[in-house]
Amino acid sequence: MTDNQYDLVVRSTEIYTPAGRVNGQIAVRGEKIVGILGPEEPAAARKTIDAGTNPVIPGLIDTHCHFRDPGYTHKEDYYNGTIAAAAGGVTTVFDMPNVDPPTTTVDRLKAHLENAQSKAVVDFGHNASGVVPENIKGLAEAGATAFKVWMMQDIGRDYPHPPGTSLTNHAILYRVFEEVAETGLPLYIHPHDHNLYELFVERAQKQWGMDFRSYARALRGGDGVVLNTAISTILEFQRSVGTKLHVLHLSTREGVRMVREAKAQGRPITAEANPFAMFVTNDWANIEKKGPYALGFWVPEEDNPAMWGAVVDGTIDVIGSDHGPHTKEEKEVGWTDMYTAPGGSPMIEQYLRLMLTEVNKGRLTMERIVEMTSSNPAKLTGFYGKKGAIQVGADADLVVLDMDHEETLRAEHSHYRCGWMPSEDFETKGRPVKTILRGRVIMEDGNVTAEKGSGQLLRPQR
Amino acid sequence: MTDNQYDLVVRSTEIYTPAGRVNGQIAVRGEKIVGILGPEEPAAARKTIDAGTNPVIPGLIDTHCHFRDPGYTHKEDYYNGTIAAAAGGVTTVFDMPNVDPPTTTVDRLKAHLENAQSKAVVDFGHNASGVVPENIKGLAEAGATAFKVWMMQDIGRDYPHPPGTSLTNHAILYRVFEEVAETGLPLYIHPHDHNLYELFVERAQKQWGMDFRSYARALRGGDGVVLNTAISTILEFQRSVGTKLHVLHLSTREGVRMVREAKAQGRPITAEANPFAMFVTNDWANIEKKGPYALGFWVPEEDNPAMWGAVVDGTIDVIGSDHGPHTKEEKEVGWTDMYTAPGGSPMIEQYLRLMLTEVNKGRLTMERIVEMTSSNPAKLTGFYGKKGAIQVGADADLVVLDMDHEETLRAEHSHYRCGWMPSEDFETKGRPVKTILRGRVIMEDGNVTAEKGSGQLLRPQR
Amino acid sequence: MTDNQYDLVVRSTEIYTPAGRVNGQIAVRGEKIVGILGPEEPAAARKTIDAGTNPVIPGLIDTHCHFRDPGYTHKEDYYNGTIAAAAGGVTTVFDMPNVDPPTTTVDRLKAHLENAQSKAVVDFGHNASGVVPENIKGLAEAGATAFKVWMMQDIGRDYPHPPGTSLTNHAILYRVFEEVAETGLPLYIHPHDHNLYELFVERAQKQWGMDFRSYARALRGGDGVVLNTAISTILEFQRSVGTKLHVLHLSTREGVRMVREAKAQGRPITAEANPFAMFVTNDWANIEKKGPYALGFWVPEEDNPAMWGAVVDGTIDVIGSDHGPHTKEEKEVGWTDMYTAPGGSPMIEQYLRLMLTEVNKGRLTMERIVEMTSSNPAKLTGFYGKKGAIQVGADADLVVLDMDHEETLRAEHSHYRCGWMPSEDFETKGRPVKTILRGRVIMEDGNVTAEKGSGQLLRPQR
Amino acid sequence: MTDNQYDLVVRSTEIYTPAGRVNGQIAVRGEKIVGILGPEEPAAARKTIDAGTNPVIPGLIDTHCHFRDPGYTHKEDYYNGTIAAAAGGVTTVFDMPNVDPPTTTVDRLKAHLENAQSKAVVDFGHNASGVVPENIKGLAEAGATAFKVWMMQDIGRDYPHPPGTSLTNHAILYRVFEEVAETGLPLYIHPHDHNLYELFVERAQKQWGMDFRSYARALRGGDGVVLNTAISTILEFQRSVGTKLHVLHLSTREGVRMVREAKAQGRPITAEANPFAMFVTNDWANIEKKGPYALGFWVPEEDNPAMWGAVVDGTIDVIGSDHGPHTKEEKEVGWTDMYTAPGGSPMIEQYLRLMLTEVNKGRLTMERIVEMTSSNPAKLTGFYGKKGAIQVGADADLVVLDMDHEETLRAEHSHYRCGWMPSEDFETKGRPVKTILRGRVIMEDGNVTAEKGSGQLLRPQR
Ligand SMILES: [Zn+2]
Ligand SMILES: [Zn+2]
Ligand SMILES: [Zn+2]
Ligand SMILES: [Zn+2]
Ligand SMILES: [Zn+2]
Ligand SMILES: [Zn+2]
Ligand SMILES: [Zn+2]
Ligand SMILES: [Zn+2]
Repeated sequence: MTDNQYDLVVRSTEIYTPAGRVNGQIAVRGEKIVGILGPEEPAAARKTIDAGTNPVIPGLIDTHCHFRDPGYTHKEDYYNGTIAAAAGGVTTVFDMPNVDPPTTTVDRLKAHLENAQSKAVVDFGHNASGVVPENIKGLAEAGATAFKVWMMQDIGRDYPHPPGTSLTNHAILYRVFEEVAETGLPLYIHPHDHNLYELFVERAQKQWGMDFRSYARALRGGDGVVLNTAISTILEFQRSVGTKLHVLHLSTREGVRMVREAKAQGRPITAEANPFAMFVTNDWANIEKKGPYALGFWVPEEDNPAMWGAVVDGTIDVIGSDHGPHTKEEKEVGWTDMYTAPGGSPMIEQYLRLMLTEVNKGRLTMERIVEMTSSNPAKLTGFYGKKGAIQVGADADLVVLDMDHEETLRAEHSHYRCGWMPSEDFETKGRPVKTILRGRVIMEDGNVTAEKGSGQLLRPQR
Repeated sequence: MTDNQYDLVVRSTEIYTPAGRVNGQIAVRGEKIVGILGPEEPAAARKTIDAGTNPVIPGLIDTHCHFRDPGYTHKEDYYNGTIAAAAGGVTTVFDMPNVDPPTTTVDRLKAHLENAQSKAVVDFGHNASGVVPENIKGLAEAGATAFKVWMMQDIGRDYPHPPGTSLTNHAILYRVFEEVAETGLPLYIHPHDHNLYELFVERAQKQWGMDFRSYARALRGGDGVVLNTAISTILEFQRSVGTKLHVLHLSTREGVRMVREAKAQGRPITAEANPFAMFVTNDWANIEKKGPYALGFWVPEEDNPAMWGAVVDGTIDVIGSDHGPHTKEEKEVGWTDMYTAPGGSPMIEQYLRLMLTEVNKGRLTMERIVEMTSSNPAKLTGFYGKKGAIQVGADADLVVLDMDHEETLRAEHSHYRCGWMPSEDFETKGRPVKTILRGRVIMEDGNVTAEKGSGQLLRPQR
Repeated sequence: MTDNQYDLVVRSTEIYTPAGRVNGQIAVRGEKIVGILGPEEPAAARKTIDAGTNPVIPGLIDTHCHFRDPGYTHKEDYYNGTIAAAAGGVTTVFDMPNVDPPTTTVDRLKAHLENAQSKAVVDFGHNASGVVPENIKGLAEAGATAFKVWMMQDIGRDYPHPPGTSLTNHAILYRVFEEVAETGLPLYIHPHDHNLYELFVERAQKQWGMDFRSYARALRGGDGVVLNTAISTILEFQRSVGTKLHVLHLSTREGVRMVREAKAQGRPITAEANPFAMFVTNDWANIEKKGPYALGFWVPEEDNPAMWGAVVDGTIDVIGSDHGPHTKEEKEVGWTDMYTAPGGSPMIEQYLRLMLTEVNKGRLTMERIVEMTSSNPAKLTGFYGKKGAIQVGADADLVVLDMDHEETLRAEHSHYRCGWMPSEDFETKGRPVKTILRGRVIMEDGNVTAEKGSGQLLRPQR
Repeated sequence: MTDNQYDLVVRSTEIYTPAGRVNGQIAVRGEKIVGILGPEEPAAARKTIDAGTNPVIPGLIDTHCHFRDPGYTHKEDYYNGTIAAAAGGVTTVFDMPNVDPPTTTVDRLKAHLENAQSKAVVDFGHNASGVVPENIKGLAEAGATAFKVWMMQDIGRDYPHPPGTSLTNHAILYRVFEEVAETGLPLYIHPHDHNLYELFVERAQKQWGMDFRSYARALRGGDGVVLNTAISTILEFQRSVGTKLHVLHLSTREGVRMVREAKAQGRPITAEANPFAMFVTNDWANIEKKGPYALGFWVPEEDNPAMWGAVVDGTIDVIGSDHGPHTKEEKEVGWTDMYTAPGGSPMIEQYLRLMLTEVNKGRLTMERIVEMTSSNPAKLTGFYGKKGAIQVGADADLVVLDMDHEETLRAEHSHYRCGWMPSEDFETKGRPVKTILRGRVIMEDGNVTAEKGSGQLLRPQR
């Protein structure tokens, strides 16, 4: 039995629980929510945060981020990355395996998790590389929370698709589906038809040269066939094997149609959309203006309504930030040669702001944001109950929002080491003002106060 | 501010909240849940109920019951009816307007609510008769929670479809759709093609005589065309007007297909299934054995999988008990002449037991039961937040279950005045052991202790 | 055995046979095609028509015309009507039963056919009134080729829906479906929800007065709900009974969707579009300009693409002219009171011209025209083989076209007694220059030379 | 102008024309049908065949046969193969390019056509190998009638997939789609996921050894995923490029679903079913009994209804015989090692008999057979008008059938050099009794009388 004082109480007239908005108090003891209380209840606490009418939502869970650590820590490391996460309202991250070395083996995974543990300021798990079927069971036992595969080959750049993250061989991919199915974990796939892509790259280079415009068009050659062919393939693999499949980067109308149809059959399929595609690269003007700093993948006008439609209607289950910074030097070459410049851009600190702005515009509801950024990611990764909802027994991961705050986004105000971001100069309304991780305030008004290494490893229960 | 003792605390390792099962305590002050607390939290209370490992679910909300009061109180009155409800785990009822006089006018509605208030032992609202378009706005203002229309004519019996509850004229029905749309309330329709039905009745009587078998077959003549034609009509009216439409009694495969397709277009349509159809009349053997005491409407073998499929996959949103007793004398005639005997049968006390039995068999999940019997009914009627979920701020309407209790159902153990029921002799496993309404235990081990008139009127916020 | 000379040979480089265009000769003996010959074959004949490069198509079959005889012969009689048909390339007509008396009984049908026989200059059959189920079998035996039902009541005008053509009672309609199913004949239904229509009429009159604009809008009130509700009903009846159903006047996008879906299930359903709707009333400017002389039913902009899409893609099986003249005096009142003025307009002489114009524009193919105006109508009525195709054994019903002829349509150049037409002043390119019925040229350059009564009754083989 | 006697007249009461069955006479002058005449017409002819009540259908067109010439003429050569074709009622063949050398270049194609010309006894064209995109335009100009690609790699046997017929690289395949699209010719694809297949082979060998049973199961591992993944890929390529796509070997329920859906969008897609799959390998008992002599690919029980459903409902457009003999010696090894034994089996002489037997059983209509074996193949290859229909102007390619002939099939009665066939001992009813090619009888009662080299090359009009 415990004493009479809570460690923390958070009050708000707009607490977003799974049962809708509640006017009340979230009572925390240690790291856990131990009570949800009405507004009038006595709730003595060592610390009380009164959010007033500011909404409180569960901490964001980002199932898709690239922290560049180990191997590319000049771009970002796990410490920087999770500081930006905390600043953005993200309390849990699952980072991707395209680091050096990629997490293809148990030893690498253990080392990766140890390194992460030494630096993370938010809770974390790791999406291990699923390219070696024989290693999947071991990786699952060693704590992988999901498996990630790029349907790619090493494409001549050490980043982002180094050996150990990608595969194109369907036999191996099918075995990956089988092995992952046995672990019960989800399989995240970046759909891509590598041979086809090379064809469109060659053509784009011939027609438009090497710059960012050429690069943007290459991937969407043939009206999305590079993506759609891969999506239809993995959906059929899923039908054959039964694996929990998470389709990354959904952005073509055919892809949306196929995924929607497959989900309607009751199969365990989820889909992701990315902030860069929803807010930046779906407007060619941004690409023209920001060039390599916008890219990412272009979403042409004819596919944009389908992608946003899927976000609004629930075909999209999860928003993954796809946060992935590079240095300005690395990006700068993209103005003239985007094919050697790396794709990827930092996003983890801003994507909640961008979505809150849409709430203020009436395009998204707060409930839908909570679903896509917190409850669904928690369900996908198997941590719902502990994460992803403001409920008793869950970790006290909370974000206090200020929906009236207007701000022009500037990289200089961000926590990114790289010094730039694709959402530069975007007008926003709404931001996280406090991030609370397991009962501790780790961000307040932009200041991240969490200690290095204070994040906790999330290990699936097996 | 309040004092340190809760009025009631309910402990269980399996509290079904909207965020899943929680091990914890529900803290109640007055009528409201003011806290959900972890199992270790100190929770001093005037009264503590420790359910141990028994599940606790939100009180059932029955959007479809017929209490026969006023006008037919020899069958049942609002007091008897709500006692049976309380015994069955139902804490909120919305009764139907086919009483005498039917609730077609503001004055009648007011009188009806007053009468209900004087007798109800659970909370209640009323589905007013929607047959007079001019009166709909007034009825909504006077507190109707929904509107109900039978697509029928007075069929020569004073019960169950007296003047004032039914209409067949499409122009009037269309105006009903329009008027109800403006109130924002849902429109409940019993789909039926009256002309067609008369045709099949005539034929059935010619072919099979007047008994219960003949009657059972009449409604399903032409492979469900009596129902399907009506369903397609109201779905098209809904498309045209935009009204919140609640389709009652879904039980044909074509009906399921049409409703599923219409819902997939994002239209505000919900559908109901009934316990008598799910458990009794979908097996001809029951009809043979129980005759008029089984009927209700027959669900033929070829339609049963579609109906149950819709229950399992979410096409069905709501289970409405369609509780509607008659006396044995009234029923008895149905052995030889079911066309003058009334349909309808008592169910409100047993339907939770029947569904819990399916949970024990693995056919339904507890989550799905909570959805169909509590959260979805609350959302449909607009009371979600106050009712339909175990959450802070909500009414403390709770049911404690004993999932291991095995029982052969007997009318003599029920609270029905009529002395019989269609679920007689069914083997069940699982029952409600305590019903709590707004913080007060109103049923314990089958004994209903609530005072007459202690139920509360639910009035939509406008 | 026969002699060496054919009675007639028609030569063309573009004969439209079921196997595509053939360069050759159609050899006729007596009334029949007895040979299709290559262009080089010797083909001695008493009469040779060399069409050169002018296309030759099978004579049009109009399954939907209103000749007003008997009862309204001041508008048109069977002689006038079939002369206009012959002038328009139509060699077979099936007229509708809304004459006086309507053809509800065997005696009336016999009288109707006798009268028609005494006047017709093209072959003919009759779509009997199907409103009296008991009479259907007899009518089929007496030579009805199909049954027609309006889902209407007498609407206060003696024309066009007098007692004896219409019904709204679903029980009777269902019995009609059953009785017609047993005859094997098709059932043509004018879908309409009468009650609903009256509602929209009342509103339209209140809002827009009594003129043609008001009338046009009334039928399409509620976004086509008057039509769609009826279509969904008859499709469900068809599913239940299995009758061959021919849905008339398809023109709403929901109707197109429902019919397309039902046909895809392999059910014996066909659908009709009408020239007035495809060419006249689908452009509000025509309604504004021609007022009562345009109407017919308005097809709003949002439904036009679906209707034309259905024409192009094959969802529409049959073009029925819906030819139905009235006098100018009768129409003139429609400028101020269209609700007492009759709908209906003359079309049988121009609809081929209007479609040929679309062939010249590239919107329709000649093959599709032949399908919709000849082969499919022949299949629908059961006369394929005898009618509807240029093939050996078939009646020598042929139309020679001049695809280069440009003409501004004028009623004064038509054969209509009524002196006006909705296609007045339309610019066309393409016309029939010769109509051949059973081997005899009955129209040449607009002059119809057939003798009164020379048309032949088509009697279904039973 | 020509003289008064036809060269040939064929009389029958059941001539299957595109407009249905006709009682009449087919008049032939030289190689062409110059007249279709009624039964009473005088038709003097140098030769008259009176088929009486025996049906006459257009000569079969086999778009998919493997004659093994050049390169494997010990199995069969073009002379043997086309003699068997003529015996089976096939008057036109389009052979496949997996010969030695495969027809990847203009020179090879020319040599192939010359060789074929020197031996063929029926008309012929060639489906060139489409694996070298750069050569496609030239091959089209040199007379290819279609392009064929196996989605395979050389699999360690010189037959059937030697270098030069297969490709797995999607970039090259996409370019093939593009190049073939520009020629306007159809692209035939054998859908197969080679990597996946190897996986299932490895597993099958491990689990079941090397015999025919193991081989049969290997291809259908993963519930058809080897085929379905490939089908979804080529359907998406087709959507992207617009090529006329002909999907070979359709036999999985998912494949049928995908193809049906894609066709419903109006895209130029056709699909093939094969006799071996419809009659032999869809029954495991045949595989057990005939082992390597049955295989071909197994069609499991759960896919058989979908495949046959697609045959009946029109989703399947074309029956390709997939005739492909091997010697007994080559096959015999398959009892113990089917992985080195070749697949493929002789069928061209029997498939019409097998289908006629189904007509006698009521499972197929004669009209559907004519569509799938003659008119649709003619439309697919662009020769409709000249081939594929009994009509004036077409080649006089005719088959006279005896629908009452009962026969147990025996390879010894066939014209196959290889001495065996998968339809050995099948009971049939119905056979071709005369085959007429361009006006000459080339088969009568099983005796093929055509001279070597009398077949004619079919060259697409460009
Ligand atoms: Zn990716
Ligand atoms: Zn990524
Ligand atoms: Zn009801
Ligand atoms: Zn009821
Ligand atoms: Zn009509
Ligand atoms: Zn009409
Ligand atoms: Zn093949
Ligand atoms: Zn083959």
